Amino acid sequence: MQSIYSKIRVGGENTNSVRWSWFRRFGSWKIERDSRFKKVDDKDTARFESILDSRNNPSSVLYQKTENLSAYNTDWLRKYKGEAPVVLKPKQTQEVSALLEYCNANNIAVCVQGGNTGLVGGSVPVFDEVIINLSRMNNILSFDEQSGILQCEAGVILENADKYLREKYTFIYPLDLGAKGSCQIGGNISTNAGGLRLLRYFVYFFHSLVSSLPPFLVFLSPLWFFFFFFLKSINHKYKRYGNLHGNVMGLEVVLANGNVLNLQSNNIKDNTGYDLKHLFIGSEGTLGVITKASVLCMKEPTSYNLLFLALPSFANALKVKLLAKRVLNEIISAIEFADFQSLKFPLTYLHNRCSFPLEGKYTDYPFYMLIETSGSNDTHDKEKLTQLIETLFNEKLISAGTIAQDMGQFRSIWTLREGIGPGIGESKRACYKYDVSLPLYQMYDVVENCRVRVEEMLGHDTIKRGEIDVVGYGHLGDGNLHLNVVTPTFASKYENVLEPWIYDQCSYYRGSISAEHGLGRMKGNMIHYNKSALAVNLMKNFKQLLDPKGILNPYKLKVSYPKNMLWHCFCLLLLKSNFNEQAVKPSQQKLTAFSR
Amino acid sequence: MQSIYSKIRVGGENTNSVRWSWFRRFGSWKIERDSRFKKVDDKDTARFESILDSRNNPSSVLYQKTENLSAYNTDWLRKYKGEAPVVLKPKQTQEVSALLEYCNANNIAVCVQGGNTGLVGGSVPVFDEVIINLSRMNNILSFDEQSGILQCEAGVILENADKYLREKYTFIYPLDLGAKGSCQIGGNISTNAGGLRLLRYFVYFFHSLVSSLPPFLVFLSPLWFFFFFFLKSINHKYKRYGNLHGNVMGLEVVLANGNVLNLQSNNIKDNTGYDLKHLFIGSEGTLGVITKASVLCMKEPTSYNLLFLALPSFANALKVKLLAKRVLNEIISAIEFADFQSLKFPLTYLHNRCSFPLEGKYTDYPFYMLIETSGSNDTHDKEKLTQLIETLFNEKLISAGTIAQDMGQFRSIWTLREGIGPGIGESKRACYKYDVSLPLYQMYDVVENCRVRVEEMLGHDTIKRGEIDVVGYGHLGDGNLHLNVVTPTFASKYENVLEPWIYDQCSYYRGSISAEHGLGRMKGNMIHYNKSALAVNLMKNFKQLLDPKGILNPYKLKVSYPKNMLWHCFCLLLLKSNFNEQAVKPSQQKLTAFSR
Repeated sequence: MQSIYSKIRVGGENTNSVRWSWFRRFGSWKIERDSRFKKVDDKDTARFESILDSRNNPSSVLYQKTENLSAYNTDWLRKYKGEAPVVLKPKQTQEVSALLEYCNANNIAVCVQGGNTGLVGGSVPVFDEVIINLSRMNNILSFDEQSGILQCEAGVILENADKYLREKYTFIYPLDLGAKGSCQIGGNISTNAGGLRLLRYFVYFFHSLVSSLPPFLVFLSPLWFFFFFFLKSINHKYKRYGNLHGNVMGLEVVLANGNVLNLQSNNIKDNTGYDLKHLFIGSEGTLGVITKASVLCMKEPTSYNLLFLALPSFANALKVKLLAKRVLNEIISAIEFADFQSLKFPLTYLHNRCSFPLEGKYTDYPFYMLIETSGSNDTHDKEKLTQLIETLFNEKLISAGTIAQDMGQFRSIWTLREGIGPGIGESKRACYKYDVSLPLYQMYDVVENCRVRVEEMLGHDTIKRGEIDVVGYGHLGDGNLHLNVVTPTFASKYENVLEPWIYDQCSYYRGSISAEHGLGRMKGNMIHYNKSALAVNLMKNFKQLLDPKGILNPYKLKVSYPKNMLWHCFCLLLLKSNFNEQAVKPSQQKLTAFSR
Repeated sequence: MQSIYSKIRVGGENTNSVRWSWFRRFGSWKIERDSRFKKVDDKDTARFESILDSRNNPSSVLYQKTENLSAYNTDWLRKYKGEAPVVLKPKQTQEVSALLEYCNANNIAVCVQGGNTGLVGGSVPVFDEVIINLSRMNNILSFDEQSGILQCEAGVILENADKYLREKYTFIYPLDLGAKGSCQIGGNISTNAGGLRLLRYFVYFFHSLVSSLPPFLVFLSPLWFFFFFFLKSINHKYKRYGNLHGNVMGLEVVLANGNVLNLQSNNIKDNTGYDLKHLFIGSEGTLGVITKASVLCMKEPTSYNLLFLALPSFANALKVKLLAKRVLNEIISAIEFADFQSLKFPLTYLHNRCSFPLEGKYTDYPFYMLIETSGSNDTHDKEKLTQLIETLFNEKLISAGTIAQDMGQFRSIWTLREGIGPGIGESKRACYKYDVSLPLYQMYDVVENCRVRVEEMLGHDTIKRGEIDVVGYGHLGDGNLHLNVVTPTFASKYENVLEPWIYDQCSYYRGSISAEHGLGRMKGNMIHYNKSALAVNLMKNFKQLLDPKGILNPYKLKVSYPKNMLWHCFCLLLLKSNFNEQAVKPSQQKLTAFSR
């Protein structure tokens, strides 16, 4: 298999390393406090206390000077830290409205916070923004079993909503995340989180273990690194039930000036006027504060099955995916892939929790796939799976395969896939993690390009010697690649090789630099990788219209192009002139070439 | 079963008829030509000709003075008629851009036209707007079998896209409509059409019959009335594959000033910035002209089955729906209901195409249900259906039931449901048709309220004598009711009884006055029934931002509150004070009460 990157090297006479370096450090992102924002004084806090009636609700206003606010000021990965002097915890929409009206009138910057479980620093202040934490708005308002629509407040914890639905109605919430025990529904919608559905059970056990520890213990313990990767990685085994734009039926949003915008609805179909709610889904709290939501939920499936396959190539994985879609159609709930390099980590470092389920060694085959089904009749589902396996063997698309025979095997196989992250964590090495969207035909090219680049920039035996591991795995169903580069330490020499190179690759292949986690603070200045200047300008106008003073979540998700944009465009143009456009177009021809 | 309306009558001492009358004629909607818009002159047409290179493309500019433009100026129901002096047919985005840039600079109003198959007069000019017809932008650009994403131009006819997918890839387009042979993908997205999936085959036959007639024959023939109801009614047998907000992955939109906004994407997941495309989905061409789209398509199912059930009450239909969701879960593709009054029409007027599939007469049972499944294994699907029927009989939820044994019976049963509209058409009586969203628990109440109202206002034996029929049927899955009132003729005495009473009912029950068809010209001034003043004001701002001169589809989808709004609110308030809030809240208690 010849990677595209190697083609470029040939065509470009090995000058690409120099060209890529032009982009280096382009992403640097210096933030300074905006002096237009007022520092909170005693008059302000007195007003906050009166709005939230803090005499009767002592926990509704918390001060930095009297209490330790680090749980609110620091994100859960301890990567980002702000210095909010005060945390406000409203109980109802009217309070949120009054708080925002006051802040807007007095130029006080606000950081909106849900469960604070994001990965891009969107939920913690950057400087001294006041935190409006929605955790007290945690009421489930109604559930209509007929329409399947749940109405609840934004601060409801995802797991609580799901538990309520399962226990009372045998329904499930259409979203599930590793952080389900802490993340909130309002935060999920604000960040357009995943839109996937967790299917397995062992996460409950493991996550409850994490949740049961006092948070400081998790972070102080040397294990937190492991937990981080574990929790992050369990995003991967989710079922697709459509995205939140398809499942959110209504919202209640408080605008920056305190106006309450009621877009709540119990109707699945409503074609009257512009559908404003979508503007707030994924806007990361920069356009308004979501206070209530109506979400379409699904009936709980009763049967789950899991298939584990070994394949000779990534191209075969794509072919197997198509066949599975035909034979399993309505019962497919997850299609995942991992290269053999990825499996090294769970098998080496988590060998007490998982084992290689096929004969031979994991290095015998280059690629692996997991196909999970969920349905309403186990016998039927198993029959369909057997039929698929037979077809796959007959057509020689797979080298080996097995169906999980019991729940123990089911869990063990899933750990193999989900244990990649935690396994890397256990190895005590550093890891640069990228979560990107890419067209499936080019998805694995980027992993190979990355290997070529690493060897080229850091020494030709770096990967062979095992000093650096470049592993690729992800959701075949969604075109979502997790590219992890495992290095001995975190060091700028590695970072400079990878960033912003990886973002340029996404931009070049018309993928997305953020598949699931938004831009937040981490990628706040990188919107130009995915959106045109005109689109960004329109976003800027919407921001201006809804939040003219910019008090909502400032310093994040910047809807503007960087100043050195011209230079960037010039570099990208030069680079593109070197690519062979035909080579990256998805075509049957290319797919056939892959499988050779 | 005691209807809510009868409760009101008791509580309100029979004064409701007077109160409702306050609203009468509120919906009157006088439109005058906006004098700011320029009348097209020779200079303008010369420019249009130059932009579209009409020398080489003679059909790209059509004039009223030289050609008959009635096919463009009149909607297909011949209900709305405009007087566009010129029809412009661009072939590519750049031409649309140049046309809009010119029109915007010269204050020339524009009517954007797709297949002109809408039902609310949104696709024809009101006065002398220039028509931009997108039928020449009909290229399918690409299909990626792996991601399932189809990229095409806006003028592609829905049926062509679907055919292309079925024949080349065994995929299906996620939307299907009665008008599939004429409607265009851009128009579907602009009006957020249905979001459902046609499942049967006989429509192909019947629709091809209609399409094969020259259009004028259809309209001149006395049969057009029948065709109208038939085509409208075949919307009802569709499968839900999620709405267009969930399926449209990207758009290319030309803004009023000619700027091309590229929101195209091949990624299923992309969380970078505000998701602007949703603003254009369902905006009925008032914010921009959609020129290209990326749509997520589905693998074609291979097995279809159909269940026909007779039930003692509407409450039982709701219970059966829940049970079916549990037993059939992933294979359900349609859940429909109809009262016995509805079935009278197909059984009387279309008896050569359908028959009552159960023993006895259709008047023996008050309610009927159709449950359709589609999956990948026929044996499995049939087993699940048999299991469901057994459970339903055991739990005494249904009075009788049958599974379609072959394709003939499958079609005959579907005709029973879909033939309601055509049957009414065949009866040669007038019909007031309302397509609304309502919470399922209150859905049939509205039909009963309507009967009470009709008897109260038009004479107590009107329904008994068969002078007027009030029939209710629709999609149980989506909460979408089709309320049809069949009268001897179209007359204001009937209309005044029904409108805006029916819209007030929707507003009161927090339903939607337009489930599938948008507001267009017909309901253009009725946005206040569903959206708050603040939301409408925000829409107005967006409109102002994107189309400051208001040249795009003027006179339709008015994003403003009517001037006599205060009076309306006062009436609604008075009316609401008379309702028993508890009685209309969805609750288990109410459901139990229903079934007695």
